[in-house]
Amino acid sequence: MTRLDTARIRVARQRIDPAFLDTPLYRCEALERDLGCAVSIKLETANPVRSFKARGTEVVASALADSRASAVVCASAGNLGQALAWSGRGRGLDVTVVASRFAPAAKLDRIRALDARLELVDGDIETARDRAAAIARHDGIRLVEDSLDLETCEGAATIGLELVDAVPAFDAVLIALGGGALATGVGHVLKECAPGVEVICVQPLGAPAMTRSWHQRRVISTDSTDTIADGVAGRFPIPAVLNDLLLVADDAVLVQEASIIAGMRMLFERAGLIVEPSAALGVAAILEDPDRFAGRHVVTVVCGSNVDAASYRRWIGAES
Amino acid sequence: MTRLDTARIRVARQRIDPAFLDTPLYRCEALERDLGCAVSIKLETANPVRSFKARGTEVVASALADSRASAVVCASAGNLGQALAWSGRGRGLDVTVVASRFAPAAKLDRIRALDARLELVDGDIETARDRAAAIARHDGIRLVEDSLDLETCEGAATIGLELVDAVPAFDAVLIALGGGALATGVGHVLKECAPGVEVICVQPLGAPAMTRSWHQRRVISTDSTDTIADGVAGRFPIPAVLNDLLLVADDAVLVQEASIIAGMRMLFERAGLIVEPSAALGVAAILEDPDRFAGRHVVTVVCGSNVDAASYRRWIGAES
Repeated sequence: MTRLDTARIRVARQRIDPAFLDTPLYRCEALERDLGCAVSIKLETANPVRSFKARGTEVVASALADSRASAVVCASAGNLGQALAWSGRGRGLDVTVVASRFAPAAKLDRIRALDARLELVDGDIETARDRAAAIARHDGIRLVEDSLDLETCEGAATIGLELVDAVPAFDAVLIALGGGALATGVGHVLKECAPGVEVICVQPLGAPAMTRSWHQRRVISTDSTDTIADGVAGRFPIPAVLNDLLLVADDAVLVQEASIIAGMRMLFERAGLIVEPSAALGVAAILEDPDRFAGRHVVTVVCGSNVDAASYRRWIGAES
Repeated sequence: MTRLDTARIRVARQRIDPAFLDTPLYRCEALERDLGCAVSIKLETANPVRSFKARGTEVVASALADSRASAVVCASAGNLGQALAWSGRGRGLDVTVVASRFAPAAKLDRIRALDARLELVDGDIETARDRAAAIARHDGIRLVEDSLDLETCEGAATIGLELVDAVPAFDAVLIALGGGALATGVGHVLKECAPGVEVICVQPLGAPAMTRSWHQRRVISTDSTDTIADGVAGRFPIPAVLNDLLLVADDAVLVQEASIIAGMRMLFERAGLIVEPSAALGVAAILEDPDRFAGRHVVTVVCGSNVDAASYRRWIGAES
């Protein structure tokens, strides 16, 4: 049994602003000739924060507002911070976001623009997590811990509810794996409501901690990360999240940076979608192992589109 | 009274595949600092044909299937053809699309990929219209005439139904103006259900026939067009459509090519959206007349994203 409960996920869904729900889910045939399988896109980028993260922060912030809390803090690679800033602002919460100074400038700018207090740390997301926890202790305010806090998993899990309602059914779902909220949330609902669907997590070779942990069934940390997929570049898997992931994931695979870029280019050229590197992991996984998916119907969750314009131009404009 | 009827539009909506309905509608604050007004996006690109046109072709094709028709033909700048090919394929219809050989290659490729018979003409969309009509007469099959045929307007009008259901309300809607189906359809519903909303049509200076016709209240044709906005580059306005447009549009404005490109760049950089030139007309209109929109809440319908990748890279400056 995971820490999640489908009935509670359905209740959580009612707390989420409709702008983040019932996102597009559609066959993208223009990708299929190159990928050799049927591909459907679940698009989580056409909303005010351009990622799926607000599904979770809406649940967090509405509960905080109910309890008359006035402030909240989180660490973020950039997307959770935007989402918490958006959800908190609408409910009168003071939001503090701690992020790495190496996070994409576009993400940091948007966090500031959404009226959050942004504190930058010199390290990576793990340094930011430590600092956010210190702020929460010092100020006596709620710390939102992505993937550990059930609201973040339940929010992500509402994507799963929308997938299982979809007709026609599909054979596999490809999910970007970072801290694990998206994978455990969507995976929980699929395993309960559509157990025949293969749940495949995808992580960059340059940030493999959770994938290695899943394969070895124990927490494996790494000393560093090296990937353009900034949204999934953690080093310290959370034990409780790994436990859940072991229950709901059928596989966890690692992909190369070149495949991530090829995936972004393909989503640009064939699907007309701007995606951030983390959101191209699913396509990258198909590119690296086409035989596995040949003839099947695969859903890939396009989880975010927050890119620095200059980096993105380079990724899609580079000579092939 | 326009040729449209809101009750009939509601019935038409039931014939449309859900993949094309309830498209994202969301505030895009990242655009607002540059544009000086509140901006919401109605996104019609996250579907199997990457434009709003399938709302209309679903209505057409389902009626044809009901009547046991076996074939249909249309002229298209590229998006209607894709949509009709998609809608017809699912209902066993033989679809013929006539297009200009100068249409974007991506649009032509997608029409072919959707199993339609594609016939190219040497002229522009008006030449294609003549040829499609000749095919229909010769083969005795249904000719779908965009904007003239009520189903195409009713399909587009379902966007209006979704806009008037939106909360909070908005002050103005910016609609790309080509043949007029989108403008008359959405305009009809707004004028009937939300008469306080200003309906503003936007056309390129390089393809101004319908806008000039609207201002002079009679059909004005042009000898040629010169715009990158291939989706709205007609020369011969249809009298019945102009009559409807005179009843529902509050204004029709023309924008320069440079503003269209600036709009595409802004939607790329700020909103993370790939759009075709016609879909940037609304943003272009705000850029050219910011005082008109200052402090107001404006919806822009992002009506399509079918671009040639090479052209798009050039427009957003990917080589630089």
